[in-house]
Amino acid sequence: MSRYFSSKFDRLTPYTPGEQPSDLSRFVKLNTNESPFPPSEAAMECARGLLRPLNLYSDTTCGDLRRELAAIEHVDPDELIMTNGSDEVLDYAFACFCDRDHPAAFADITYGFYPVFAQRNLVPYTVIPLKDDMTIDPEDYTGIGKTIFIANPNAPTGITLSADALEKIIASNPDNVVVVDEAYADFSGVTCVPLIRKYPNLLVTRTFSKSRSLAGGRLGYGIACKELIRDLETFRYSLNPYNINSMTIAAGIAVLRDEETVRANIAVINANRAYTTEELTKRGFRVLPSGANFVFAMHPDIPGGVLYEKLKDRGILVRHFTAERIREYNRITVGTKEQMDLLLAAVDEIRKEN
Amino acid sequence: MSRYFSSKFDRLTPYTPGEQPSDLSRFVKLNTNESPFPPSEAAMECARGLLRPLNLYSDTTCGDLRRELAAIEHVDPDELIMTNGSDEVLDYAFACFCDRDHPAAFADITYGFYPVFAQRNLVPYTVIPLKDDMTIDPEDYTGIGKTIFIANPNAPTGITLSADALEKIIASNPDNVVVVDEAYADFSGVTCVPLIRKYPNLLVTRTFSKSRSLAGGRLGYGIACKELIRDLETFRYSLNPYNINSMTIAAGIAVLRDEETVRANIAVINANRAYTTEELTKRGFRVLPSGANFVFAMHPDIPGGVLYEKLKDRGILVRHFTAERIREYNRITVGTKEQMDLLLAAVDEIRKEN
Repeated sequence: MSRYFSSKFDRLTPYTPGEQPSDLSRFVKLNTNESPFPPSEAAMECARGLLRPLNLYSDTTCGDLRRELAAIEHVDPDELIMTNGSDEVLDYAFACFCDRDHPAAFADITYGFYPVFAQRNLVPYTVIPLKDDMTIDPEDYTGIGKTIFIANPNAPTGITLSADALEKIIASNPDNVVVVDEAYADFSGVTCVPLIRKYPNLLVTRTFSKSRSLAGGRLGYGIACKELIRDLETFRYSLNPYNINSMTIAAGIAVLRDEETVRANIAVINANRAYTTEELTKRGFRVLPSGANFVFAMHPDIPGGVLYEKLKDRGILVRHFTAERIREYNRITVGTKEQMDLLLAAVDEIRKEN
Repeated sequence: MSRYFSSKFDRLTPYTPGEQPSDLSRFVKLNTNESPFPPSEAAMECARGLLRPLNLYSDTTCGDLRRELAAIEHVDPDELIMTNGSDEVLDYAFACFCDRDHPAAFADITYGFYPVFAQRNLVPYTVIPLKDDMTIDPEDYTGIGKTIFIANPNAPTGITLSADALEKIIASNPDNVVVVDEAYADFSGVTCVPLIRKYPNLLVTRTFSKSRSLAGGRLGYGIACKELIRDLETFRYSLNPYNINSMTIAAGIAVLRDEETVRANIAVINANRAYTTEELTKRGFRVLPSGANFVFAMHPDIPGGVLYEKLKDRGILVRHFTAERIREYNRITVGTKEQMDLLLAAVDEIRKEN
């Protein structure tokens, strides 16, 4: 750090994103939970037609996009805020709804950005360990009077909490916002969105990066009652009202108009997840029950870091975390059937070597 | 505000962006300093070829884009950080380089986002009034021991400070970062970029939104010594490492490869600025000497707010600010010759009515 960097950030530890190799042709990329399927040609063609002239600023209200998304999410456009990935709305939530009197709380094993957002926003936070079986104990979050962040399905475990369990957490913390991060919920089918009209303290965050094949477009959103959305909008207008560029708006609308392809892709990925889980289990892996587009798996005879390196040597990128409780695991994105077969063939080779 | 919005932001007043009419065909849009010229067809065609598959995340390092931009700016790629508009790097600078011991300082009449960024980052700030002639007095910034933000050319006045005057300010505040916001500098030709190797406390911010016709793409950048850039990168990786989407990266590189069109457009806009200044002056306006792609003008007989409304009635959008010192003025973007003639014809009608 330079001597000019404010000392208030002395403890700031940046997030480490998954590897993004510049030569994509060299790797089967199963490390950052992207969709293996690009947006359909029809969607891309539609996006070109929707593009506002680039010399003009983008629509700060994302009006058309919010209207079309609202219809699909069965909410009102005023119950939506659009952001530069769901990372941005999560960061806003840490800024707006946490402070000394409203510390943040989240699991020890969850999305790695939560502690970074807390540090970046200078808000205190409590880390609540998952149970030994890597599930969340809802009791740990009942009436704790903290601003709660729960990824559902959780990452990198893939484990899903029921909407009933989440509702109890939301209802028992009426003085704090509860954020349910549903980045992967399209793959589990479990969502808290219908609860936003019942609980004024619920914020659901979602993304176009996974099921909607738009990771490279950077589009996420929050769903909540109008009052919470207004707070977040106040903050957005204090930061970057043009946070969504015109190309992303056009691509987002176009993808929404081709929901059929999105639903078909989800079905294929869920089928491939079942296949991958079964095949890895046959090979002696412990695979956590996943509701997401990835599986979290460990082999009793192959250390997690070794498997990661040996897969990488074979051109297969998966994600390995070094935190103690999960370092024997790897998080493997569910791609196409062909990609999964390449993974399994590599695993077979590695097992023979072992 | 909802009862969940943290009280630390009680004083947060969001920025009001210029009007963005949804029906663009109804207005001559001279209110947000966009380029009247779209990126060239050649650039857009090139961008389509450069697009990384959208289902994959964008390149967090913006490697190719930084390399090509570095060659044009005559700096090293490590002396550049790419952001979602220059608003984002300005916000980072308020976060990273300001705190209780390093309060911010900027002019009373300048980019309206500076006080908002200060409030959003909870940093104290001092407002330094422009002189009566709307120029900056460099003496006011000499050795003040504050983190200084100067837009050059200034907005909405358009007035340019010399690089020599800025160098004195930078040199006399060695313990604080000085940020020179060069959003409009391509139209003045005055830049502090060459000073970054001499002053480790200088950060220059620039944008693709004005001279490079990419307002709708949201691309800005900071230029500074490697150490300051590293600080800003630490912060970016704590916030949104995927801040630039793949479409914007592709469009940005494509625009850089067509610098000839960009230079030609700047020449046309500067010629139209001279024409507009001359014609408005003939009509009794006081027009401040502008180094930007807009003019700031007032007529002694027509109140600023009245002129704004009457132009809007005629389908011409300009920007009016209500702050006391400048409420008799309007900021008028310099567009094509045809747009300027429409403006002047409307002004002639309004003068007759008056």
